[in-house]
Amino acid sequence: MNAPDKLAQFISLTREPLPASRKVYVPGARADVRVPMREITQSNGETVTVYDTSGPYTDPQATIDVRRGLPALREGWIAARGDTEAYVGRQPYALDDGLKSGESDALAVLRAQAAGLQRTPRRARAGANVSQMHYARQGIVTPEMEYVAIRENQQRDWMAQYLSNAEREKRLAGNSFGAAIPHEVTPEFVRDEVARGRAIIPANINHPELEPMAIGRNFLVKINANIGNSAVTSSIEEEVEKLVWSIRWGADTVMDLSTGRNIHTTRDWILRNSPVPIGTVPIYQALEKVGGVAEDLTWAIFRDTLIEQAEQGVDYFTIHAGVRLPFIHLTANRMTGIVSRGGSILAKWCIAHHQENFLYTHFEDICDIMKAYDVSFSLGDGLRPGSGADANDEAQFAELRTLGELTQIAWQHDVQTMIEGPGHVPMHMVQANMTEQLKHCGEAPFYTLGPLTTDIAPGYDHITSGIGAAMIGWFGTAMLCYVTPKEHLGLPDREDVKTGIITYKIAAHAADVAKGHPGARARDDALSKARFEFRWMDQFNLSLDPDTAQKFHDETLPKDSAKVAHFCSMCGPKFCSMKITQEVREFAKMQGVSEEQALNAGMETMSEEFKRAGGEIYIPIAKA
Amino acid sequence: MNAPDKLAQFISLTREPLPASRKVYVPGARADVRVPMREITQSNGETVTVYDTSGPYTDPQATIDVRRGLPALREGWIAARGDTEAYVGRQPYALDDGLKSGESDALAVLRAQAAGLQRTPRRARAGANVSQMHYARQGIVTPEMEYVAIRENQQRDWMAQYLSNAEREKRLAGNSFGAAIPHEVTPEFVRDEVARGRAIIPANINHPELEPMAIGRNFLVKINANIGNSAVTSSIEEEVEKLVWSIRWGADTVMDLSTGRNIHTTRDWILRNSPVPIGTVPIYQALEKVGGVAEDLTWAIFRDTLIEQAEQGVDYFTIHAGVRLPFIHLTANRMTGIVSRGGSILAKWCIAHHQENFLYTHFEDICDIMKAYDVSFSLGDGLRPGSGADANDEAQFAELRTLGELTQIAWQHDVQTMIEGPGHVPMHMVQANMTEQLKHCGEAPFYTLGPLTTDIAPGYDHITSGIGAAMIGWFGTAMLCYVTPKEHLGLPDREDVKTGIITYKIAAHAADVAKGHPGARARDDALSKARFEFRWMDQFNLSLDPDTAQKFHDETLPKDSAKVAHFCSMCGPKFCSMKITQEVREFAKMQGVSEEQALNAGMETMSEEFKRAGGEIYIPIAKA
Repeated sequence: MNAPDKLAQFISLTREPLPASRKVYVPGARADVRVPMREITQSNGETVTVYDTSGPYTDPQATIDVRRGLPALREGWIAARGDTEAYVGRQPYALDDGLKSGESDALAVLRAQAAGLQRTPRRARAGANVSQMHYARQGIVTPEMEYVAIRENQQRDWMAQYLSNAEREKRLAGNSFGAAIPHEVTPEFVRDEVARGRAIIPANINHPELEPMAIGRNFLVKINANIGNSAVTSSIEEEVEKLVWSIRWGADTVMDLSTGRNIHTTRDWILRNSPVPIGTVPIYQALEKVGGVAEDLTWAIFRDTLIEQAEQGVDYFTIHAGVRLPFIHLTANRMTGIVSRGGSILAKWCIAHHQENFLYTHFEDICDIMKAYDVSFSLGDGLRPGSGADANDEAQFAELRTLGELTQIAWQHDVQTMIEGPGHVPMHMVQANMTEQLKHCGEAPFYTLGPLTTDIAPGYDHITSGIGAAMIGWFGTAMLCYVTPKEHLGLPDREDVKTGIITYKIAAHAADVAKGHPGARARDDALSKARFEFRWMDQFNLSLDPDTAQKFHDETLPKDSAKVAHFCSMCGPKFCSMKITQEVREFAKMQGVSEEQALNAGMETMSEEFKRAGGEIYIPIAKA
Repeated sequence: MNAPDKLAQFISLTREPLPASRKVYVPGARADVRVPMREITQSNGETVTVYDTSGPYTDPQATIDVRRGLPALREGWIAARGDTEAYVGRQPYALDDGLKSGESDALAVLRAQAAGLQRTPRRARAGANVSQMHYARQGIVTPEMEYVAIRENQQRDWMAQYLSNAEREKRLAGNSFGAAIPHEVTPEFVRDEVARGRAIIPANINHPELEPMAIGRNFLVKINANIGNSAVTSSIEEEVEKLVWSIRWGADTVMDLSTGRNIHTTRDWILRNSPVPIGTVPIYQALEKVGGVAEDLTWAIFRDTLIEQAEQGVDYFTIHAGVRLPFIHLTANRMTGIVSRGGSILAKWCIAHHQENFLYTHFEDICDIMKAYDVSFSLGDGLRPGSGADANDEAQFAELRTLGELTQIAWQHDVQTMIEGPGHVPMHMVQANMTEQLKHCGEAPFYTLGPLTTDIAPGYDHITSGIGAAMIGWFGTAMLCYVTPKEHLGLPDREDVKTGIITYKIAAHAADVAKGHPGARARDDALSKARFEFRWMDQFNLSLDPDTAQKFHDETLPKDSAKVAHFCSMCGPKFCSMKITQEVREFAKMQGVSEEQALNAGMETMSEEFKRAGGEIYIPIAKA
């Protein structure tokens, strides 16, 4: 156990708002729909509103106590539907936390810390289905859907000024590869997308702290960050701050991939304090329960683990039901075999028993659990390639087709479903992954890990994969699972997590811009305008990582005066290309004619005047 | 001036070979063609040979004295052609170093340091043309072309083992978008490519220290790194180490973008010590000579600067001859105007004089200089977009079409030519840049800066641009100009330069793999195989940055024993997905049947045996 002072050190949460930012809440039709966004105020008084995943942590008005958890903002919505019941949940065992009986003292200490986080679980009443998909198919617009609609629109008013140039809009119109992105997202649109399975709103009824969000190709591209301890290092106390740190930088969902001890208790801490959907891979915990011996796994143990996690409030489960017995031999001649942990656990089980994967044979039983809590499927790609050499092979695509079949079954149960994808894929083979997925999985949201476009850069796999992620996001992938610089090498630290997230925010945003998402490019324009007008602080504050942008600037030009200077360190004070362009424009303005007119008229006189005026390089630039 | 001890600190060159690597020299048909490569020895005895840009610096046998310069390996080749003459070159002025007369004492000190680097310049005899393109068109295979052919092949023998799987080769076959990449590069192929202008070998006759390389869409994608001082910071002493550091990590060419003082002398240091082609933007120095006042530039001053730099040995010049007067007004309504320094200098000149760009009007005069020294054109994109909003606009494409016209003129003079490209371009607009360039510029090599695919991530523009660079490299761009994390913010330091280079090596390699370059994917396969076999050190050593890969690994598992461990920190010793796959294979082998057969036979017995054998997780893995 950690000493109390070490504990205190780790759970000091990052609470400061990002620079020049304040939390605003956009009201919905009903009083209890208040959608948080981040408003950035520029030095010229203009504001830019951006999507905000950081939850109450960045709201100085919010009182946070990680031992009590976040406010249960969805509690009333869930209760009002009248289709759930509170019940005495499953009793947690020491085994849930990976502990043996003799170690229960340590567990008691941990659980005491988390005592304030215990909730009475809810489930669907007998015969009811509480999934967002089920409501959507009944024609019901839930508060969650309204919330998502407002959130996706990001207050587009401020964007209008950047949409005024018709030539530019036409020139930059995106290519969405057949997506159907609306100009404005309405609650009805969200309902329709969820109803047809093209989007999911991961939102377990036992995770009422959640700020609802959507994953689907017609919405903004989302990113996931993984956190978790491991058998070798890590500690529980870090978990909440890991979450807070991840969502601060833009993680839309977080997967808890813990595999070591105390994972049940850790999960309580995370869920009760998480405003974003939490995903897990339940087979990891099930494996712990059987002492790490894959062939000892049973449906009963797995089912019990699903119930355990569903009661805690996990929003989506990775289920490797596509790792079918007949596909396993297809991996025998691969360069890197089976690299998915879940995939290899199930492959081992299948071979040991020479039986079909029990997740496949029990798939409808799993659906019954999913719809009783509204847990979404993330159908795992256990046979994804672990190297470019294995990309798009028959093992991978056989599994993908199976995931398509399973999607249809899940949809028969009105269970929300997304599909996981690779992995390691050279650039020219990336698009085939998307087209195959669209073809076989009925436009269920695709959720890919990268893909990494080359294998030769361990230490930089956030970049090798960021390339593939941007491309596949453009082609239609709805959520991108981040990769950190430590991929293949070790456990990511705080800075690695941030680097991974920012890289994936870049990939997701580049994809949105390329798709022509109407809410995407305005931020680029606002930042470019600030850059061009030498509004340095605005350039930093509008960026994905203001801290790093300013730090990098200050390394070369640390003085405050440099941040209002009309030059930068690249060219120095004597000459600056952006400055010259501004002078050209100013000159044209001074003469009361446009540059074009001036040029077309071909006036030598103006040239003379320009020489006199422009010779003085420090003419103040008129403020807009 | 720096004190001597400070000087010593900066010019300590990085000389250690990369881990497990040694320099090998592959002989050509003639004794004086010896092409350096880097051979990496793996722990299993297998070797991997990779392209090596690092020059003699990583050869422990080489004696290096930066005050004397590298051996002039091309001297004999140039002399043997008998078409050049040594002559009394242009006398350098204090002004060449950006100094006023009163400052010449400082200059004298500097020049004394560089005295051992002074060479008598050569030029073409009257009426001769010494360009590689000219020789190629005469049907001559120069030693430079033979050198390039050997270099591009990278000793493919070791690659054969990875090409044995026909299914894999077929599945992974690249898409080169109409390139004509040969299976093996012959000297004749190089000659043909240079003759038709589809590749260049930048190789000034006054840069005999150069290890020849080619830039063209049918060769490996190359990258460029920029170095240089600036008006605000930097010092000459760092310059050689900046170069050495850049080529150590893989820069194929280096551009010296110095704009401050001592630039002539700095350039001597760099050129005499550079095994890679050096490019410059001569207008920067010309501007210094007229005190930074763009409108005071004249053809005479510019011409003199070209001669000055050609005599020093600069291999390619960025010439912004496409910034034509009639195009400048097209930038007036841009989001970010003209952002190229060269472009804005010339725009300012054109407007001030209301005359056509003197680089355009004197283009054939420039050609005459280029062919007298074999300096290659890098036709600059002075009107490239500085934001996604300005991508692919009429200003940019009007200039590109002009660069196409100028290419035809350059080719009439047998002057080697490449074309510079953007810049800032959203993903969906990247390919149009390549197709327009191919259409208008007759397949002359394209050389792009990124492009950046979004503007919202200052501090991470190596990544925003690495995405675009990988894509456009795949589409056919021959060389990618790197972008560092400090882009838009400040001057890159040592780590930033390395990060920029590694990112661009990733982009270039990912492009080669996607194009189906026959010499590309084997390195991915070798590393993947090492990864799968838990040969940790081999995984590090085969990577683009072994130091970082090992450092990241050691942060989590520092012990030496962890580097031979059959597990990693992600899953810990208890469970590892790659390990399980290996066990599955081993099991199949033990039984003397393939996994597939075992499965198809459906034997319960084997399952039982597997449970006994596979239950022991630490069965030693048989070495291949």
